[in-house]
Order: sequence, then C-alpha cells, then structure tokens
Amino acid sequence: MKSDLDRLMQDAALDALLVAGGTIHNPAMYYFTGGIHLLRGFLIKKRGEAPVLFHPSMEREEAARSGLAVRDLNDFSWNGVLHRAGGKRLAQLLASLDVRGRVAVLGRIEIGPLLACLPALQEHRPEIELAPEFDGQSVLARARATKSEDEVERIRQTGRATVEVVGNVADFLTSHRAHGEVLVNQRGEVLTIGEVKRRINLWLAMKGLDNPEGCIFSVGRDAAIPHSTGIDSAPVETGKTIIFDIFPCEARGGYFYDFTRTWVLGQASDEILAIHQDVLEAVQLARRSIRPGVICGEVQVAVCQAFEARGHATLRTDAKTTSGYVHTLGHGVGLDVQEPPYTRPEDKATAFASGMVFTIEPGLYYPERGLGVRLEDTVWLRPDGTLETLADYPTDLVLRLPGA
Amino acid sequence: MKSDLDRLMQDAALDALLVAGGTIHNPAMYYFTGGIHLLRGFLIKKRGEAPVLFHPSMEREEAARSGLAVRDLNDFSWNGVLHRAGGKRLAQLLASLDVRGRVAVLGRIEIGPLLACLPALQEHRPEIELAPEFDGQSVLARARATKSEDEVERIRQTGRATVEVVGNVADFLTSHRAHGEVLVNQRGEVLTIGEVKRRINLWLAMKGLDNPEGCIFSVGRDAAIPHSTGIDSAPVETGKTIIFDIFPCEARGGYFYDFTRTWVLGQASDEILAIHQDVLEAVQLARRSIRPGVICGEVQVAVCQAFEARGHATLRTDAKTTSGYVHTLGHGVGLDVQEPPYTRPEDKATAFASGMVFTIEPGLYYPERGLGVRLEDTVWLRPDGTLETLADYPTDLVLRLPGA
Repeated sequence: MKSDLDRLMQDAALDALLVAGGTIHNPAMYYFTGGIHLLRGFLIKKRGEAPVLFHPSMEREEAARSGLAVRDLNDFSWNGVLHRAGGKRLAQLLASLDVRGRVAVLGRIEIGPLLACLPALQEHRPEIELAPEFDGQSVLARARATKSEDEVERIRQTGRATVEVVGNVADFLTSHRAHGEVLVNQRGEVLTIGEVKRRINLWLAMKGLDNPEGCIFSVGRDAAIPHSTGIDSAPVETGKTIIFDIFPCEARGGYFYDFTRTWVLGQASDEILAIHQDVLEAVQLARRSIRPGVICGEVQVAVCQAFEARGHATLRTDAKTTSGYVHTLGHGVGLDVQEPPYTRPEDKATAFASGMVFTIEPGLYYPERGLGVRLEDTVWLRPDGTLETLADYPTDLVLRLPGA
Repeated sequence: MKSDLDRLMQDAALDALLVAGGTIHNPAMYYFTGGIHLLRGFLIKKRGEAPVLFHPSMEREEAARSGLAVRDLNDFSWNGVLHRAGGKRLAQLLASLDVRGRVAVLGRIEIGPLLACLPALQEHRPEIELAPEFDGQSVLARARATKSEDEVERIRQTGRATVEVVGNVADFLTSHRAHGEVLVNQRGEVLTIGEVKRRINLWLAMKGLDNPEGCIFSVGRDAAIPHSTGIDSAPVETGKTIIFDIFPCEARGGYFYDFTRTWVLGQASDEILAIHQDVLEAVQLARRSIRPGVICGEVQVAVCQAFEARGHATLRTDAKTTSGYVHTLGHGVGLDVQEPPYTRPEDKATAFASGMVFTIEPGLYYPERGLGVRLEDTVWLRPDGTLETLADYPTDLVLRLPGA
C-alpha cells in the first residue's frame, strides 16, 4: 500500500517517481491526488519525501483540494503541454526539487509527446537516469497491489452499488416472458441486449458510478468468447447461457469493482447445469487454496488440474485452446479494473498477501456448443488471512420466468 | 481527416505509425478501430497501406468487428502485456509487416512499461527509428484536426443530446424557489451542486452518453476560477453567476461535445449583465473573424484586444493575470474534448480550415468580485467556409424563478 512506497523505491533503487498527466482515468495520478479534477499536471515523489503536485495555473484551486504540496506551472512559464520545450521544462521541474538519480516515469497519457520530450529532458537534467518499469512489476504497481482499509472501503461501496444494479437487471429480465426462444415485454416487444445495457448504464448513473469500459452481457455462442461484450441489436434468448460481467468505478475514474454471474432464463439444460457446477467447484477450490504466502500462479495451476480432471481442456494442456478454461483465475482490482496481482502460472514469485483485493473468476467456454459460464467475485484478503467477498450476491444459474 | 493521413505521413517523413493500447478512452486507437471494445492491442499503419490490428486472442471477435485486417497476438506467443519480453515481441509485430524507417509511437497508455520496452524494441528491430511527435503537432493530431462528415454527424448527435440535458438542468433549477440566497425545493430543502450533478449524470446516461471527466457547475467565486468544477456540498445560490460547462462523449470514449452557458438564478446585477454582454460580443467578434485560412492565434489576439478596449486584463497584457480574460478562445473537439486546433497567440502557423470542429468560448473572470462568465459552443467550419453551431441553445443569462 501507499505506506510501502518508500521501501519499495529503496528496493528498486529508485530515487524519484515522475507522474504525468491529468487525474481522470489516470490511476497513477489518481493514487496520489485522490479524486480531484486536473486536466493536466505532473507529480514528483522523491524517495522519503512527500509528493509535490505541479498544476496548470487555471486549476490551482482543484490542485489545492488534493491536500498535497502544490506548485503552479505558471512559475515555470509553462502550462504543462508537451511541446518542443516540454523536455526542458520537465527538467526544470525536476531541478526545482533537486531530483537526481534513477527516476521512473509513470502515468496514462499520450505516449508520443512524452517520448518526444525525453531526449531534451535528459540533456537538460543529466543528473537523472530514466529507470525501466515493466508492466505489472513497477514500484507503484507493487504498492497499489495491497490496499489500505480506506481503499477497501471504497471498493466495497462500489461493489455494493454494483450488486444492487445486478439485482435490478435480474428483476428487469424476469419481468419479461418467453415468446419462442426470446424474451418479450408485456406488449410483446422483443427485449434486446442494447436495451438491457441502456438500463444498466442508467442504474449505474443513479448510484453515482461510471461505466467507462461498458459491460459484458453476452448470450449463447457470444458468451463462449470471454471478451465478447454482446451485440446490442440481438434479442435476449431463453435457455442459453448469459454471461453478465459488470465492472464500474467511482465517478471520474476512482476505484473499480468487478463482478460476473452466468444466468439462464427459464430452463437450463443438464449440460449447462453440469458446466456451471464445475465452475462453482472451481470457485470453492480457489477460495480454499488462497492464503497469504501462496504463490498466485499455483492456484491457477490447481484450478486447471481440477478442470482437466473433469475433462476440460485448459491453457496448460493447450496454450491456444479456445474451448474449456481459456483464461487466468483472476486479477487485482483497484484504480484499474485489472491490475496486479495476476495469477499467471509462469510467474513463480508473486504470492497472495494480506491487503490484496482481487477477483476469483474461473470459467468454461464451448463456442462450438454455444455456451459459456463464468462466475466472478471481488474479494479482499484480510489482515487475519481470511477472504472477504466485498459484495455478496447469489450464484444461482437459473432465472425463472413468470408462468414457466 | 483520415484520408489525409498518407500525405501527412509523407510530409513528416514517417514510414509507419505504431498505436498501442486498448480502444477505450484511447483516441488514437479509437480513431482507427471506430468503437469496438479491446482491452489491449496494437495497430500498425504503414504509409500507403491499410492499418493492421493486433489483438489478444480472447478479443478476436471484437477485433473482427472493426472491419480492419487483424492478427492474433497468440500467433506471436504473446498477449500484448509489456513485460520484459515486450520489446522483442513488438519488434516481431513490426517485422511481420516488414516495417522499416521512421516510426511514430502513439496511444494513451501507461507510459512506464512502453518506455521500458523501447531499448529491446530498437535492439531487435534496428531497421526502425523512433520519430518524435510533439503534443498537438503529431501527424495523427493533424489528420484528426479536420473531420469527415461522418465524424461531424457523430459530434452533432452528441451535441443535440447534450443541449437537451442542459435544458433539463434549466427546467430543474427553475422548478425550485429562492429562499434567502439559495434554491430550495417544494419541501424547503436546499438544492446542492452535488444533487444537480447527480441528475446531470442520470440524464446523460439516459441519452446513452458517457461523462468521463465530469462537468463544471460552479457558482460565484468558484465560477471565477475557470477550471473549478464546483463543490458538491455547496448550495445553488441565487443572484450569482453559475458557469455550467458540460462535455460528454459517446459511450466508451467516442466523440465529445463541449458546451458552456452562464446563468444567474433570479436577478442579475448590472455588473454581471455588462460582463455577460462583453462576452457575448466577443463570441460574435470571433464568429465574424473565423474563416478558412485565418491564423487561429490571430482571432485570439483580436478577442484580447476587444476585451482590453473595454478595460479587461488579458493574458496579453499580463501573462499571469487571474482576473479578466485568462484563457484561450477555443480548441478542437473530437475524440478528445480538447484537441487541435488551439488558438494560441504564439502559434503563427496554424490556420482555421474547412472541416475543423472547435469551440468558441471567451470568458471573463473576477475572483475578487465573485463572478465569472463563459459562453461556449462547438462549431463546424463547413466546406463552404461558413460556421455551423452543431447544437443550438439560447445564450440567455437570467433563469427566472417562480414567483420572482
């Protein structure tokens, strides 16, 4: 968590972090500034010192709300745009805090202009060396991988609002009736996936949540493609698996929650029931296996083995399979909907630790049979070593329809 | 526009563009892929050739919906995450299309991991040279600065929905009454800025729009700080200027619209009326001045001169002033809420051109008097050289309250 940052910087021999960009949908900047609204800015965190936020002059009051030490970019004759002089001005920011040594550059920004400014930055500030920070292994990613209780509470609140919306969706679907193999409303009009998604966005907005990446609501064969989001014009079909994966965040790009249920409207076939049961048992196996100190990738392997024992292909048995269990078990959740820790089997080093918040989301996919099942909850590995599901919701497969 | 891209690449001696990242809130990737949902990916556009999209295996169906030529990252034994091997894998993507020469790297992504991968990319693909692309001056920014009729239509639709929401807000405000210097509802409860914003988000969601950066609804002294967004817990006050600046986009980070009105609830003082009139006349001056071929920064200067003639300070008379006219006249609007063209007076080269879509948004700010006024419309410079406001809405200052 944030309080580990100086130690992690020391371990990585980093002298400073330079975070670039605004605060919206820019997790690194949000992490330090906590939800203020800056269109542009830079933040410098020296090891062992409090961060300093450099802001455009027009955004001075917003910047002050962060509670951080602030400096006006106007004092550097600059508004923060990375034009030709950007490298020189960045060097001046670093010089103003006497930054020397190894500096990591962070932030979700347009990469081109910053790349273009780096040569001048190095030329005007030879006292620094840019330090490589690979995906998921950066110092900030390591700090963010464990959450403070304040962060957990924000994720929990997002989660509670999320599952209320999931309940709204279930109620809405079952307020319809089956007509042939599709849902229709009281007037006999076919319910489309687009209409369901429109309502999801509305209900999320009513809860004050953002839905920056949309959600997955995919039926039948589409549900068998893990990242298919569903076709707006398609009808909501009965008797087929519906994967509903929803991952909203606090307004303006704060903390996310990630949640999936698989539903069948009306009657589920024995085939679907069996697959759903296999996924449920994988969830239980994963929950039993996860403790502080357990290597993340080992739980992935255990779940693969369990699926294989039931005759499902996995990425272990065939790295290119598109049937069976075709993804990893989970990922961290925080200011990104997917962030460390990951459960990659090739990663023999990353272990679960108290404070981590992550998903458990096994799934089975059979495109050729037109079905997919995934169950996902976001859990917190508590200081006492137990798992807490941050927002409870039933795992029921079948949603009964009126009159059925 | 996009059809200019090969010519612009030729002018800039660029052989290829390498676009990195997913499609959501990543304008460069969205520009080529048009609204599909990829969490990760790369796109390579060679000069004179159609772009090729490299996608994670799980997102193959979404990728196919782009209509682009696609390649599965699985064929490169890779899922697109920029780990230690990322540079080598990126080199393989470029090699698979035989990319040589000057390559610009684009995309709104976490900068750290890509920076970390560049040395290995260069080592494994010495045939390429990374080309600097400064902010607002990149080849893609130049292409994007003029819009096709399809793009204009998408911005217009976003605009029409936006001004309908603005009308909802005006109706909602005037459904309240004044009590002392604040608005109250029928039950006498004070209306807060937070409640207004909650409804704005709801009404935007009902229109299918995203509001990724929130909006500005700031009153009185806050309205005098151009980028103050307003304090949620603060009451909506009567008799003071309210700056309402709203800039939503299509769902999942498509085309934006940008719009501002300044309102006073109840009665406006003569001082406010005069300032509002000065801003209105600045709008009219700007609209008269803008034609294809006119240097953008010159219109900025003309507006400054007009304000100065009426006794207002400007950034021309004092580069650090926080009173008077403290920002530029406008900016392009498209897949970013702010993008080229800009009206920076120091830029003597950028001219207005047919096809540009941009804001006209003069404003006057007096923090010490607790007032700010800004008026903003998004306009299209049509092929016939005339300006079209893409979504009409009255510029009225005063919103009358019932019984007043």
